[in-house]
Formats: sequence, structure tokens, C-alpha cells
Amino acid sequence: MEIVNKVNIEEKLSMFTEYWSPKIVGQLNGQHVKLVKFHGAFVWHKHEVEDELFYVLKGSFNMEFRDKVITVNEGEFLIVPAGTEHRPVAENEVAVMLFEPATTLSTGDATSDLTKPVLDII
Amino acid sequence: MEIVNKVNIEEKLSMFTEYWSPKIVGQLNGQHVKLVKFHGAFVWHKHEVEDELFYVLKGSFNMEFRDKVITVNEGEFLIVPAGTEHRPVAENEVAVMLFEPATTLSTGDATSDLTKPVLDII
Repeated sequence: MEIVNKVNIEEKLSMFTEYWSPKIVGQLNGQHVKLVKFHGAFVWHKHEVEDELFYVLKGSFNMEFRDKVITVNEGEFLIVPAGTEHRPVAENEVAVMLFEPATTLSTGDATSDLTKPVLDII
Repeated sequence: MEIVNKVNIEEKLSMFTEYWSPKIVGQLNGQHVKLVKFHGAFVWHKHEVEDELFYVLKGSFNMEFRDKVITVNEGEFLIVPAGTEHRPVAENEVAVMLFEPATTLSTGDATSDLTKPVLDII
């Protein structure tokens, strides 16, 4: 029988400090729920076939697109459609929940030192 | 070109008062992000092929399973695997974000007056 347990976001966030390193905290229907902390500027990239959801748990950040910038604050989420170039930039630390297919690489089509091919499950 | 907009959870929650009536606030990768308010007891049901995520935004509720009860508090989420019978019960009003496939009916395999075959997009 499958074990059903709840996940406490605050507790999971306290388990890591590094930036741009998403941690898997849940999986369902081929999708992953991840927690990540941003600080500074990420790389420009896109995901060819995957839409990506960013839900801000603490703080705020700017999602840069080629034609505009959207500031996403605590309690707000943004869905970046597949194929759309984007770059998250966080002036201060921000904690974000991601929802995306299990196959998604954080840097999408970009080659970068920030790419994490294997993610921790916490 | 696809329009990218952020969603403010608080604002969306203020747009409806009825219980057990999920509203669609986002879609990605064939999945829906929904907001719902619970109060009282729902019906026992299961989803044959869909896992379902419940993330508590405000308040708390009990998820009853046939062999245990899990209290899910604000800032916590629970994933109910496909095929698992469950029944949400909320003593007081609770606001929940759901993440599940676009095909998911809230009452799963149960026949109920609470079934909402068509959901509003807000």
C-alpha cells in the first residue's frame, strides 16, 4: 500500500540554503513539486515542451521576458508557457514552489553551470 | 503569442464563497490549478487514475482515509495517490489549492449532488 504523508513547506525550506538548486518534495501524475531558493540573476532559457509554474512562498522576484518584466510577490504564481524565453531575477532571497513535469531541467535549453541534472528529494 | 499573467491567490479567493466548488485558476501540461473552499464533510470517493494534491492556503482540515486521518494545516500539502479512498472534512472553513489532471472530477467515482461536471475559470 502506498504511504500517504503530508509535507510541511516551512520544514522543507529549512533543510537547504543553496540557491538555484530545486529540491523535489512531491510527485504526482508525472509532475514534480519542487522547492527552490533564488538570489541574483539566473540564465535566459526556455523549455521546449514543458509549461512551468512558479508560486512565491516568501519574498518576491522579477520574471524577465524578452518583451516585459513581471514582478511576482508572495502568494502569487506565474505560469511560463513552453517555448517562452524567461529569466528569473531576485534582488533578495526568495522561496518558490515549482510545479512542472518530472523531465524538466531548470536551465531548459541553456548550457550553464547552474544546470542540476539530478535533483535531491527531500 | 501567448499572454503571460500572474495570478494572485488572495484576490481569486475573494471572488467566490461557495463550498466544494473548485475554480480553475491556472492550467499547464494538461493539469489544472484550482482553488476551493471546504466546510463540513465531503463524500467518500477515489480517483481511479489521477493523483491529487491538496495545499492548504488558510485554515486546516482533516483528510480521512479508511485506515487513518491526517490533519493538513496551513502551509502543508498532501498528495492522495490514485485509487486511494479519501474524504476531506473541515470543521471550519478552509481554503485549498488543488493540483490535478484537467480530467479530474472532485467526487471521483462517487455519485453525489456535490459533483461539479463543469468548473468555472476565474
